[in-house]
Amino acid sequence: MKGIFSKIVLLAAGMLWTVAGFTQPLPTAAQLAWQRAELGVVFHYDLHVFDGKQYGQGSNRISPVPDYNIFKPSQLDTDQWVKAAKDAGARFAILTVTHETGFALYQSDVNPYCMKALQWKNGKGDIVADFVKSCRKYGLEPGLYIGIRWNAFMGVHDFKVQGEKNRFLEARQQYYNRMVEGMVTELCTRYGPLFEIWFDGGASDPADGAPDVLSIVEKYQPNTLFYWNGQRSDARWGGSETGTVGYPCWSSFPYPSMLTGRYPAIAEHNFALAKHGDSTGKYWLPAMSDAPLRGHNGRHEWFWEPGDEHSIYPLSNLIQMYEHSAGRNSTLILGLTPDTAGLMPAPDVERLKEFGDAIRKRFGNPIASYNGKGDIEIRLPSVQVVNQVMIGEDVAKGERILSFVVEAKTGGRWKQVYAGTAAGNKHIATFAPVKASAMRLRVTQQRNKPAVIVFNAYFNDEIKPI
Amino acid sequence: MKGIFSKIVLLAAGMLWTVAGFTQPLPTAAQLAWQRAELGVVFHYDLHVFDGKQYGQGSNRISPVPDYNIFKPSQLDTDQWVKAAKDAGARFAILTVTHETGFALYQSDVNPYCMKALQWKNGKGDIVADFVKSCRKYGLEPGLYIGIRWNAFMGVHDFKVQGEKNRFLEARQQYYNRMVEGMVTELCTRYGPLFEIWFDGGASDPADGAPDVLSIVEKYQPNTLFYWNGQRSDARWGGSETGTVGYPCWSSFPYPSMLTGRYPAIAEHNFALAKHGDSTGKYWLPAMSDAPLRGHNGRHEWFWEPGDEHSIYPLSNLIQMYEHSAGRNSTLILGLTPDTAGLMPAPDVERLKEFGDAIRKRFGNPIASYNGKGDIEIRLPSVQVVNQVMIGEDVAKGERILSFVVEAKTGGRWKQVYAGTAAGNKHIATFAPVKASAMRLRVTQQRNKPAVIVFNAYFNDEIKPI
Repeated sequence: MKGIFSKIVLLAAGMLWTVAGFTQPLPTAAQLAWQRAELGVVFHYDLHVFDGKQYGQGSNRISPVPDYNIFKPSQLDTDQWVKAAKDAGARFAILTVTHETGFALYQSDVNPYCMKALQWKNGKGDIVADFVKSCRKYGLEPGLYIGIRWNAFMGVHDFKVQGEKNRFLEARQQYYNRMVEGMVTELCTRYGPLFEIWFDGGASDPADGAPDVLSIVEKYQPNTLFYWNGQRSDARWGGSETGTVGYPCWSSFPYPSMLTGRYPAIAEHNFALAKHGDSTGKYWLPAMSDAPLRGHNGRHEWFWEPGDEHSIYPLSNLIQMYEHSAGRNSTLILGLTPDTAGLMPAPDVERLKEFGDAIRKRFGNPIASYNGKGDIEIRLPSVQVVNQVMIGEDVAKGERILSFVVEAKTGGRWKQVYAGTAAGNKHIATFAPVKASAMRLRVTQQRNKPAVIVFNAYFNDEIKPI
Repeated sequence: MKGIFSKIVLLAAGMLWTVAGFTQPLPTAAQLAWQRAELGVVFHYDLHVFDGKQYGQGSNRISPVPDYNIFKPSQLDTDQWVKAAKDAGARFAILTVTHETGFALYQSDVNPYCMKALQWKNGKGDIVADFVKSCRKYGLEPGLYIGIRWNAFMGVHDFKVQGEKNRFLEARQQYYNRMVEGMVTELCTRYGPLFEIWFDGGASDPADGAPDVLSIVEKYQPNTLFYWNGQRSDARWGGSETGTVGYPCWSSFPYPSMLTGRYPAIAEHNFALAKHGDSTGKYWLPAMSDAPLRGHNGRHEWFWEPGDEHSIYPLSNLIQMYEHSAGRNSTLILGLTPDTAGLMPAPDVERLKEFGDAIRKRFGNPIASYNGKGDIEIRLPSVQVVNQVMIGEDVAKGERILSFVVEAKTGGRWKQVYAGTAAGNKHIATFAPVKASAMRLRVTQQRNKPAVIVFNAYFNDEIKPI
């Protein structure tokens, strides 16, 4: 990390402040790749998809699925899943290897409650392998989600094996912890490089009696995005499951992990710190925005249920979600869930394609783009109506912009149309339509000289608020 | 059951009493076959055979085996097991499908912690199937032992899922109970008729929150010997694991099951009631004598351990064990345990053969045998030394003999050489050697007219007490 020595430079003309005084955190290569990916998906698939009943998370955490052999997708096709994600514009895809049932979607040698137990494919199914192969085929980075906090089958609740405090309990807790470490080792060594390894709800901390997963990940997947445990967190949860973060949303954060038991301030004010980050935080924990695609109409479904197509977000909601996540310096991860046939349902596939097309249409052909040299200013080919700009810093150098304004040249004069604070990897600024011949970005407060690599102008339809 | 009306008939001449006054219990066909079988074996085989460590039951009940893939017998041959049992004279053989680890030696569709989970045989092993096939090949009746009381993997201790009393606990208890019922259904329907189904430590009672296994057994295996739960017990434990019972040992018993929580008298005086039964008991629960073959030299090993050959019982101990179990109206079940190669070890095989040969030699060629007609008296081919007789009632009609004496005709006069009470299916009476020209059995107290079908005379080596 590069230090910036304490000094304040006041450039009166441009009202530019350079604020320093602490060692600014910088992303690792894995974090940088993850932030630049901007959009990923997470496929949720588990036993209860097949039970024909409404998913109830609370009940699912305590009641094992009565018959695991209901899991028998008739036409499983992970290519079709990944293709749908690619059409949406996702650069990476994650699969829930285990969720809260404890059932593992691969051929584990340490957790018998896995595909080996199934009649389906004569016990030889390995959806993790299929999934990773499909990702590589379509050029998406594969990641894996490992749920260890809840395991209804093994009787694990909030990381803890249930029972009276005695030798029996301790023996099973140790067994469970070693089983988790065994699974993490298998997953880290069998499927090639993983873009992200997501421990849902975190993986707690060995200091608190949890499995020691970080050392395994560091040994076998040194380049993955590790999310997360009490020892390390390469990203943070963005504070809601709405697929959006607040504004501003800084990648810097005052704590090294999201352990609210250890850092209670994180949970205050409905996770405001998670939603916004802290420009003075000394840890680089970029924010994830996550939401299930089927989150509309009062629903919020990570798992497929029959007759639930009405809960697929309308296109306009997805576009706004994108602008309020990727467009606010956060990585959006959309939750997708294949059905009992083993396919992404047609309406979801269609919506994902519409979404990808819409984003490509909105942002793929700017009216004009900054060439990276000199003042951050773009001349439009002619006087045109503009209502959005996209700003991107090279966050490999940190988030140097602390505040900025966007100005439009209209009638020969510069007029401020937008004022912001954080920019980061991507900021999509929306403002009232203005007729302009040029647009410029003026940084008003910074840490060191910002490395702006994107400044584009657009005229896009207004999106109704979600 | 046939009632005998209350009356006492005193036959002064022969000092014969007929004692009645209650409905004498009678065996079912399954009980009769089991009693007549006299000798069976139970093969113990489980994950920890392969761990190279000394087996500790207490610790095994609470600590799951760290790596179940240690289970990989290199030369598994259940024919060799069953042949060894046949050579010992066993008429039936039982296999521990699950013991206290919870691991199941077959292809379960309801318990993932089974052979499907193994790397061994690519997850396709089914030792229950192999075992049953070998039994049928060698003409032994197959039985299965199902341990449900302890399950270290699932966190079940004395039938109960461990945890705080809450919905979570209740949900897992119900899941475990249904899993057990599923296993019992699989085992009762996949392998043909079973001679015995042995729930070790009993299967508790549905009234006490246990799985409902009896209804499944009654539906699919109506002719099996059910051993046992709180609702029904077709046999009883003989009160020790020495392979012997006390004398007398009646098949009748005052309680329908061995639930000591419900019938505390069973456990009094070191299980005296289990060892002896009760001639006035209204339930027919013949006694099992069980012992591990490797029970000598202060050892008592149901499971194979390396370097434990010195604990194989010497031949003389086995012969005395036989005489004090099968020869006391009890069915002897010897515990055998294959090694990590999947074979019965050579020293065990050899001892079993010696044992079978010795029993056949001792009792296969009596000096003389009762022909079943008239007085229970046998004339010897010449004056010979006799020191044992074998007495057998047709227990299909109950245990009618309540006391008897054995007399030898020596020097032209009848001389009492032995006095006993219970006879039952088989009683081997040993007495000081006597020169006799004839031997006779005189019943001195009875219920109805005894149906004596065996009365043999022998001269056999004296056996040193165990």
